[in-house]
Amino acid sequence: MVKHAIRNGLVINESDALVPITSREVQCNFSVYESLRVLNGHAVHLGDHIARLIQSAEQIGLDFDVPDFKAWIDELSAADNLEDATMRILVLGGEKSEIFITWQPLLTYPDSYYTEGIAAITYEGERFLPTCKTSNLLLSYLALNEAHRQNAFEALLVDRRGKVLEGTRSNFYAIFEGRLCTALDEEVLSGVTRKCVLKAAGKFGLEVVYEAPGIGELQYADALFISATSMAAMPITTLNGQKVKCDIDTVLKIRDYVRAHELDD
Amino acid sequence: MVKHAIRNGLVINESDALVPITSREVQCNFSVYESLRVLNGHAVHLGDHIARLIQSAEQIGLDFDVPDFKAWIDELSAADNLEDATMRILVLGGEKSEIFITWQPLLTYPDSYYTEGIAAITYEGERFLPTCKTSNLLLSYLALNEAHRQNAFEALLVDRRGKVLEGTRSNFYAIFEGRLCTALDEEVLSGVTRKCVLKAAGKFGLEVVYEAPGIGELQYADALFISATSMAAMPITTLNGQKVKCDIDTVLKIRDYVRAHELDD
Repeated sequence: MVKHAIRNGLVINESDALVPITSREVQCNFSVYESLRVLNGHAVHLGDHIARLIQSAEQIGLDFDVPDFKAWIDELSAADNLEDATMRILVLGGEKSEIFITWQPLLTYPDSYYTEGIAAITYEGERFLPTCKTSNLLLSYLALNEAHRQNAFEALLVDRRGKVLEGTRSNFYAIFEGRLCTALDEEVLSGVTRKCVLKAAGKFGLEVVYEAPGIGELQYADALFISATSMAAMPITTLNGQKVKCDIDTVLKIRDYVRAHELDD
Repeated sequence: MVKHAIRNGLVINESDALVPITSREVQCNFSVYESLRVLNGHAVHLGDHIARLIQSAEQIGLDFDVPDFKAWIDELSAADNLEDATMRILVLGGEKSEIFITWQPLLTYPDSYYTEGIAAITYEGERFLPTCKTSNLLLSYLALNEAHRQNAFEALLVDRRGKVLEGTRSNFYAIFEGRLCTALDEEVLSGVTRKCVLKAAGKFGLEVVYEAPGIGELQYADALFISATSMAAMPITTLNGQKVKCDIDTVLKIRDYVRAHELDD
């Protein structure tokens, strides 16, 4: 079966979703992207994703005409008979910007990742333009590789002040006695799922404190967890090879809230 | 006339020098590169460029088998009847690494850039893995765009301490009363031309001081200049829109020394 993709509104074979290495924009990662879930043919929180894509592009001065992404996603779904999928929108800048949509089978994780929690490591490094989802991803790539080498699922990025800001592909939270601590909006990617997590926290009586926890404070937390489009909310039970306390029930209540609101928009 | 390129040792049409956007290594800039001059069929300082390419790859854990680059460059030169050219070697990581060589006409600059000097701006930002020539280039791309917007030729990157480390595609130097100041080796890209500039400085009685100048000190310099493979050494006579003092003669003596030693190896 031939797999398809979208290039500038046209359905193409995925094997033709190629870019020239002689392009300066390709060479220099002058592009922005989004990763989103399609469930039963519905693109989850599409409006939020498009808004963030536009914002990322504006922040780096990448001009593009915003197409009817819903129509393009529907066309790709029709071409490959997709019900559920994880899709990636990529906007490549340049004299003539290009827009690609590609897909892979819906990214899901074993139940045990939720019921038993996952392992994470900490990794020193700061994302360039942290509020912006660009393709300048080498730090995230190297940090995640290091996590995998240590049999961990995610790497948490620690800034020069020793603050734990976010994961390589997730937002990060620590709960201390009823307070949910997370980085300031301007320090991290404004996660589409993060918005929903913070709403859930309010519902469940947690006070949201916008202050990234220091690396030394993590051991005193009642729960550490991460959130992302593909993960919803996922508890961390091992940090740098050491077991850490985690109130998994609270994290799973938040996860359930996030999943229950995927069809809201 | 069809332009060619090399892909893994084979001559291909340049229009086929393409990479898939579905590759995680493409998405995350897990690649290293070199840019070098070919003059009269001779690849200038090829040994130094290959050594740095290998070092860059090692630093990010990118494995590849080092081919006979000289033979590949000769093949590409033969295919397109090249005497002089600027070539780009790109090594893309992944399960199976790939090596590309592409070319463009020899990058040269108007004489006036040397005799009258160029304009530069300062730009706040630190390169990730500064000693490593990776494709994680968005900062350099944005900084250089900003320079062009201000009718300048180069952007000088200023770190969190206010030190001026290097340009987006060049090394940087300031001369103060017989001392040539430049960043520590571990703070910047170890330029192939930089090595030669520092040798020239010694010849011309300048004491080399490995300490990046602070942004506030630049106005007191006797000369500011940049170096790179394509530029040799180029004087800076305008900084952030203001004329600055520049002992152009000394910079041009260094440039001549660099150019005279291009065929050394």
